[in-house]
Amino acid sequence: MLKALDLARQIEAGELTPATVIERCAEAISAREAAIGAFVIVDLDGARKAASDPGLAGRPLRGLAVGVKDIFDTVDLPTEYGSPIYAGNRPASDAAVVSQIRRAGGLMLGKTVTTEFAYQHPGKTRNPHNPDHTPGGSSSGSAAGVAAGMMPIAIGSQTGGSVIRPAAYCGVAGFKPSYKLLPTIGMKCFSWHLDTVGVFAAGVADVAFATAAITGRDLRVDRGAPAAPRIGLARTHVWTETSAAMRDAVETAARAATAGGAKLEDVVLPPIFEDAYRAHATIQEYEVYRALAFEYDRFGAKLSKPLRELLDAAAAVTPEAYDAARRITRRARQALADVMTDVDVLLTPSAPGAAPAGLGSTGSPTFNRLWTLMGTPCVNVPGLIDAGGLPLGVQIVGRFGRDRNALEAALFLEEAIARRPS
Amino acid sequence: MLKALDLARQIEAGELTPATVIERCAEAISAREAAIGAFVIVDLDGARKAASDPGLAGRPLRGLAVGVKDIFDTVDLPTEYGSPIYAGNRPASDAAVVSQIRRAGGLMLGKTVTTEFAYQHPGKTRNPHNPDHTPGGSSSGSAAGVAAGMMPIAIGSQTGGSVIRPAAYCGVAGFKPSYKLLPTIGMKCFSWHLDTVGVFAAGVADVAFATAAITGRDLRVDRGAPAAPRIGLARTHVWTETSAAMRDAVETAARAATAGGAKLEDVVLPPIFEDAYRAHATIQEYEVYRALAFEYDRFGAKLSKPLRELLDAAAAVTPEAYDAARRITRRARQALADVMTDVDVLLTPSAPGAAPAGLGSTGSPTFNRLWTLMGTPCVNVPGLIDAGGLPLGVQIVGRFGRDRNALEAALFLEEAIARRPS
Repeated sequence: MLKALDLARQIEAGELTPATVIERCAEAISAREAAIGAFVIVDLDGARKAASDPGLAGRPLRGLAVGVKDIFDTVDLPTEYGSPIYAGNRPASDAAVVSQIRRAGGLMLGKTVTTEFAYQHPGKTRNPHNPDHTPGGSSSGSAAGVAAGMMPIAIGSQTGGSVIRPAAYCGVAGFKPSYKLLPTIGMKCFSWHLDTVGVFAAGVADVAFATAAITGRDLRVDRGAPAAPRIGLARTHVWTETSAAMRDAVETAARAATAGGAKLEDVVLPPIFEDAYRAHATIQEYEVYRALAFEYDRFGAKLSKPLRELLDAAAAVTPEAYDAARRITRRARQALADVMTDVDVLLTPSAPGAAPAGLGSTGSPTFNRLWTLMGTPCVNVPGLIDAGGLPLGVQIVGRFGRDRNALEAALFLEEAIARRPS
Repeated sequence: MLKALDLARQIEAGELTPATVIERCAEAISAREAAIGAFVIVDLDGARKAASDPGLAGRPLRGLAVGVKDIFDTVDLPTEYGSPIYAGNRPASDAAVVSQIRRAGGLMLGKTVTTEFAYQHPGKTRNPHNPDHTPGGSSSGSAAGVAAGMMPIAIGSQTGGSVIRPAAYCGVAGFKPSYKLLPTIGMKCFSWHLDTVGVFAAGVADVAFATAAITGRDLRVDRGAPAAPRIGLARTHVWTETSAAMRDAVETAARAATAGGAKLEDVVLPPIFEDAYRAHATIQEYEVYRALAFEYDRFGAKLSKPLRELLDAAAAVTPEAYDAARRITRRARQALADVMTDVDVLLTPSAPGAAPAGLGSTGSPTFNRLWTLMGTPCVNVPGLIDAGGLPLGVQIVGRFGRDRNALEAALFLEEAIARRPS
């Protein structure tokens, strides 16, 4: 993989030029893109041109190529949202996060594959660790492209589990920041209370570096050894959905963290979180029925069957049910703050198991929905694999607005996992 | 003015057809649009065609023409956001609220004039009560068009004071619902924590009816006499900015409400609200620097001077200042809930006075910013005029999520003002 922090340090030291970074991306794309299909469109010429801009000097992401999920508007590249309704669509402005990447000196490498409107219907992307398995979704191309070494940084989005799950399946770091830390302007909306912009990179320190550069926030965790966190192991009410390999992975991660000096305790979430889990679906359905009203009302026949069926059902969600779901959300957020008074972060699976076989489904967001609804920072920590060589991701969940703490704890865990005796 | 509720009742009773409503709009546009300039584009042919659709039967807004501020995307009509950068722009999808209007049976009449990106730089619109005075902004065309009888319903947006202030200056009812009651998807973003979709109509019952129809929520207040509310008179820390005529208007409104049976008490807002007032500017600047990044970075020379200067200054707002402003906002919202434990609504000016003379400025959002930040429902109550015949609007502010209560109290006040002895 291309490691963002290493590349940035080499560029800063004059050992590497932005142009060389782009050529490394080009080599990986040449070698692997045909088999993996991470991109809707690659713009190597544009990236090469941008790499030669002297205005990049001094910018934190200078020379680093960034892939952007094709759910974000771009003026210079088509934006199709994974839907035939928008074939060849050229928006009139860039999404805010695209402008922020440019301001930070990042180079737009291309648009990565998304499922249809970031919902379930898969694109062409395959898992770099085994092409017969899903890369996860909906940010399929961003996760797979980083995993295949095609780019050091990629942008995705999560409404259910669309950042953390593909990061876990592809064995890269994925970061879903606190709700609205990164702006959703110019991102195709699915659910305005849930849509969250996220970032992919090789490791936790890379994803923290990239997000710090894009936001101008103090989120880097690479400048010293991470402090040992107090970790709450949260099995949640969907624990029975985990594979044996995932349960092993969580236990392994927990042991590694404890061996590294972390305090670990079991945390049992009160029943309100089961209500909140269900509230996620109510909120998503109510909002998507409005967010995709134009597409559903005018181009219903061009929607995939699962999405059309979701929208058919969503029409029946009443404002009263929606308001009740929003109230449950507020109560669950307060309850989560109480749960986390004695721990810094929670440890929980990133997905039920490794990437499932087959490309017809992108897997289950079971272990992500609740945290998307809570708006809390989540990090997929890579480093564990199953017997078949597929990645198994575990998830660090932080407190709302404490993104740096979540990243630091995730780095601690990543390092503890790497150091563990085999 | 065209009264939405009266028209809807006549259509329901078979006394009026949707086609006739469109012809009444056409007559008013023919008579007054040249002098007032409420529209960027009128689409009478489209509205006439839509009026003949048998699918309108049974829909709550059937046959009612709606003007939509040109800050909302429309596929069938150009969308220019009040900026030369977007001359002739044709979006690929409709804004969510446009789809919701169509679902409710409303007929798109045209796009109404907005200031540049709904900030300060004025469009061509004049005040129907005196063409030498501003109609207010940024939803200038929506307010002026309803006031001039060109359409019964119009959609606008408020980030500072862009719904309540033009409604007050033009003497119509304006409703800024609770934050996110109406979706902002497909509306050009200025500040994602502040942008709020609002509605204009002739009177309070009309604006409640229109919003009920668009949202499917129980917001109508025309089915019985409104209950007498407990009103807190909130002069706020910017009271010294009011004109003598506005102070008289507030006193008149207060007396009329009391005479009608309302309980009225003075409410003094604690100092946190002065901090919150300032926090509005910090949040708006931090967010607009990101929301309009594409336009500022690529087309800075095509921005008006005030907007460019705002963005120049906004670059310096730090994430720390922004986070602090967000924390102040949360504390002020809690404080507001405490302030309103003993009153149902607050009464406060909609603007410092009547519409100022001149078309170079759209007036001051001084009396609106705080409530936009609080996310609370606000209603401009029309019915009072100054010595020169210009409207003076007073504002009802409700509790967050209690939109129906706010509308009912506003209707009570509107009726009390109309009934008062002269």
